Amino acid sequence: MAGLIEQLRTGLPAEAILTDPDIMGAYAHDMASFCEAGPPAVVVLPRTVQQVQHIMRTATATRTPVVPQGARTGLSGGANASDGCIVLSLLKMDRILEISPVDRTAVVEPGVVNAALSRAVGEYGLYYPPDPSSWEECTIGGNIGTASGGLCCVKYGVTAEYVLGLDVVLADGRLMSTGRRTAKGVAGYDLTRLFVGSEGSLGIVVRAILALKPEPPRQLALAAEFPSADAACAAVCRIMERGHTPSLLELMDRTTLRAVNDLTHMELPETTEALLLAAFDVPDPAADLAAVGELCEAAGATQIVPAEDTAESELLLKARRSALVALEAVKGTTMIDDVCVPRSRLAAMLEGVAAIGEKHGLTIGVCAHAGDGNTHPTVCFDATDPEEAARARTSFDEIMRLGLELGGTITGEHGVGVLKKEWLARELGPVGLEMQQGIKRVFDPLGLLNPGKLF
Amino acid sequence: MAGLIEQLRTGLPAEAILTDPDIMGAYAHDMASFCEAGPPAVVVLPRTVQQVQHIMRTATATRTPVVPQGARTGLSGGANASDGCIVLSLLKMDRILEISPVDRTAVVEPGVVNAALSRAVGEYGLYYPPDPSSWEECTIGGNIGTASGGLCCVKYGVTAEYVLGLDVVLADGRLMSTGRRTAKGVAGYDLTRLFVGSEGSLGIVVRAILALKPEPPRQLALAAEFPSADAACAAVCRIMERGHTPSLLELMDRTTLRAVNDLTHMELPETTEALLLAAFDVPDPAADLAAVGELCEAAGATQIVPAEDTAESELLLKARRSALVALEAVKGTTMIDDVCVPRSRLAAMLEGVAAIGEKHGLTIGVCAHAGDGNTHPTVCFDATDPEEAARARTSFDEIMRLGLELGGTITGEHGVGVLKKEWLARELGPVGLEMQQGIKRVFDPLGLLNPGKLF
Repeated sequence: MAGLIEQLRTGLPAEAILTDPDIMGAYAHDMASFCEAGPPAVVVLPRTVQQVQHIMRTATATRTPVVPQGARTGLSGGANASDGCIVLSLLKMDRILEISPVDRTAVVEPGVVNAALSRAVGEYGLYYPPDPSSWEECTIGGNIGTASGGLCCVKYGVTAEYVLGLDVVLADGRLMSTGRRTAKGVAGYDLTRLFVGSEGSLGIVVRAILALKPEPPRQLALAAEFPSADAACAAVCRIMERGHTPSLLELMDRTTLRAVNDLTHMELPETTEALLLAAFDVPDPAADLAAVGELCEAAGATQIVPAEDTAESELLLKARRSALVALEAVKGTTMIDDVCVPRSRLAAMLEGVAAIGEKHGLTIGVCAHAGDGNTHPTVCFDATDPEEAARARTSFDEIMRLGLELGGTITGEHGVGVLKKEWLARELGPVGLEMQQGIKRVFDPLGLLNPGKLF
Repeated sequence: MAGLIEQLRTGLPAEAILTDPDIMGAYAHDMASFCEAGPPAVVVLPRTVQQVQHIMRTATATRTPVVPQGARTGLSGGANASDGCIVLSLLKMDRILEISPVDRTAVVEPGVVNAALSRAVGEYGLYYPPDPSSWEECTIGGNIGTASGGLCCVKYGVTAEYVLGLDVVLADGRLMSTGRRTAKGVAGYDLTRLFVGSEGSLGIVVRAILALKPEPPRQLALAAEFPSADAACAAVCRIMERGHTPSLLELMDRTTLRAVNDLTHMELPETTEALLLAAFDVPDPAADLAAVGELCEAAGATQIVPAEDTAESELLLKARRSALVALEAVKGTTMIDDVCVPRSRLAAMLEGVAAIGEKHGLTIGVCAHAGDGNTHPTVCFDATDPEEAARARTSFDEIMRLGLELGGTITGEHGVGVLKKEWLARELGPVGLEMQQGIKRVFDPLGLLNPGKLF
C-alpha cells in the first residue's frame, strides 16, 4: 500500500491522511456494528473539492476501492470499510457556503452536521425539515447518501425532497454538477434524485444545494393510550383519512414503552398496549388536536393527554426519542428493521411482527413513524450468544419478507447497505436489478465506489 | 412497412392500428407545431400492458423508432413523430384503477386526463395538485414524461413529487416496476424519479402510483397593480422572504395584460406595468392576504384588489389562464420559453427579456409562476414571415442563454423535446451529458425510444 499512500500524499496535506491502525479502527464501521467490515488501507479527510478529485484519481489509477463516510451513524453498514479500501471521510468539508431567505436555499458542503444546518437556517426564519434521530451528529452528505427521513416526514417528506442540486466527484475524478438552484427544473434526467439514496455507490457528493421551508410555529402534541396496537393503527388510518396533516404521528408498542420506562423512569402507562403521539405545527393547532383526540377515542383510546405548551410537547416526544436507546439496553444489541408499508397495512404489520417475535422467542419492540407506515421493528438480542444472534437475524429477515408481502418496502429511510443486499434484489426483481446495476456501471465502470453495498 | 404492420397485427386488434395518412397526420406533432416532425409509419393505440409489450417487442425486432404520446399538449416537440416511426398513443389506457383515502394514493393508467383524476379524487376529499394549463386535456402519462408543473407549484411542487411508483415497459418489451406504494422508501436508486421528466426516452409508462394530498380549502386571491415589473418582482421576493406560503403567486407583464384585454375585454388596468396575483388556500387566509397586500404596497403597488370570495378569485385568475391564448392572438404564433431562475433574479430576468424583445423588434409577453421564478417569456411572431420567424427563434435562444447566465435552467416545466436540445447540452455540460447518454443506453441500447429528443 506504500504506492497508494505516496500517491495520495502528492495531493493531500499530511494531516489529511491517517494510517495508524488504531485510529483507523474508529472509521471501520457505522452504527450497524454487527455487519461485516474490513480494515481500510488508509483514511483520508479532504477539505476541498480538488483534494477529493485527487483521491478519486488516485483510487482509479491504483484500482483501490473507496468507501465514502459521513458521521457513521447509519444503521445498515452502508459506510462500513472493506478490506484495503480508502475510507473517504467528508467530515472536514463542513462549511455552510450560503443561505438565501429569498430563494429559500442553502448551499453546503457534505460534512455539515444536520443540527448545525437546522440551527443556522433557523436564524433566518428558515427550516430544514429532515430530522433523523441522529441529527445532532449525522451529516448532510450522509443524509443524502441514505435519503434519510425522521419524525417530520409525515408532513415534510424525506431528504430527497430538499436536494435541488449537487456537485459530485465521479469515480475517475471528474467533477459533475446535477440539478439546479431554482425552485423548479426539468432539464434532462433527474441525476440529483439518482444520487440521493445511492449510498456512495455512484460518486462523491462534495456540495449540495438544499431547499428550505419557512419555519413553522412550534408544534403542539397529544398522546393517546390504546388498549391494543390494532386500535392505535385504526386511529392512524382515521386521522389520515380525514385529511389531517400532523407534523408528527408516532406509535410505540408495549415493549418499547416498557423499555423506555426501565431506562428513563418516565412512568409511561405500562398497562397500555400502544401509545400514539400526534402533533401539529400550524398557527392554531387546537381544532386539529381536538379532532384527532376524538378520532383516537372513537378508535378505542383509553386516555388522551394533550400537551398544554411546547415544553409539555417536548416531554411527550422525549419518550419517543429515547426508544431506540431504551431497546438497545434490553439485551445489549439491536437489529433495527426499517420496513415501510402502506399505512392501511400498519395493523397487519404490527400483528405479523409480534408473531415473528413469539415464534423465535425474541423481544421485538416496534416504534413507528405511523403516519408514513414506516415501522422500526427492533430485534433485541445478546450478540455474545451466537444462537440468539442467528435467531435475531432470521427474524430480522422475516420482518422484511412480511413487509414485502404487505405491499411495502424493505427500507423506508435507513438504506440497504450490506444488511439488506439480498432483500434489495427481491424487492427490485431481476429486471429492476439489472437496470440498477447498469446505471452503476455508467458512473463507476471499475466498481470502485463503495463495493459490496446495495447489490 | 408491411412487415412492421403485419407483426403489430399479431398482438393488437385491428382498431388499435391506424395507417390512414390523413388520420395519422393528427398524431404527427404536439403544440409546438413549428418544430420538425416526420410522418409516422403507423399509429398504435393499445389498451393493455401486454399490447404495449407486444408493440415494443415488435419495434425492437424491426428496429423501428417509437414515439410515445399522450394528449400532445406539450410545448417542446417532445411528442413529435419522426419519419417512419411507430406513434404509441397511450390515450386508450385511461382507467383510474384505485383511489385510497387512507393511503392517499391513486393508481392510474397513463392515458387518464389530469382533470379527470383531479375530479375523481376530489370526490374522496383528496387533491392531486399538478395543474398544467392544459389540465382539461393533458394526460398523467404526458405529465410524467415532462414532469409538468402548473400554477400550484409554488406551494405544492411539480408532478415529480407526486409519483411514487411506475410500471414501465422497456424498449425490449420487458416489464419493470419502480418505486413503491408507500409514503417513504429508499430501496436502491430512485428509478421512478429518473423516468419522471425523461420524455419517453427510457421506457413506456403503463401504470403509475400517485401520491395525493387532502383537499385544501378553496383559495382566496388578491391582485396587485405595479408601476414597474421591477417593483412587482421585489414584492415577490419580500413575500417569500417573509415566510408566506401562497398557493399561487403569478405575474403578468404589460404586454400580456394588453393581449388579455384585447382578447377577453376584461378591462384589466392597461396603464399598469405588471400585475401580481397571490392566493392562499388555508382555512383563514385573511391575515396572509392582508400581510401580502401590505408588502405589495411597500414595494410600490398602486392598487390592491382583494377578492371577496372564491368566485371573485376565479375571475382574477381567469386573466392569468387566458394569457397564453391571448399572446397567441397577437401575431398568430408563439414560441413559449420556460426559463426558471432563482426568484432573487426574477427582476433581472424580466429586464433582460425586455431588452431582447427590443433588440429584435419583437413582442415578447411575460407571464410567470413568479413564486417559483419560473418565467414564460412568450415570443409572438408571424410564422408565415420567415425573417420574423428567424428573429423569433434567435430571441427564444437568447432568453435561454440569459436564464443560464442568471443561474437558472432552460426549462422549469415544459421539457426539452426537440426545441431545446442544443441548450440542454449547454446546461448539463460535457460530463453531465455523457452520464445522461450512458443512462439512456442502459435502458434503450438500440436508441429506439423517442429518438432525436433531449440529446
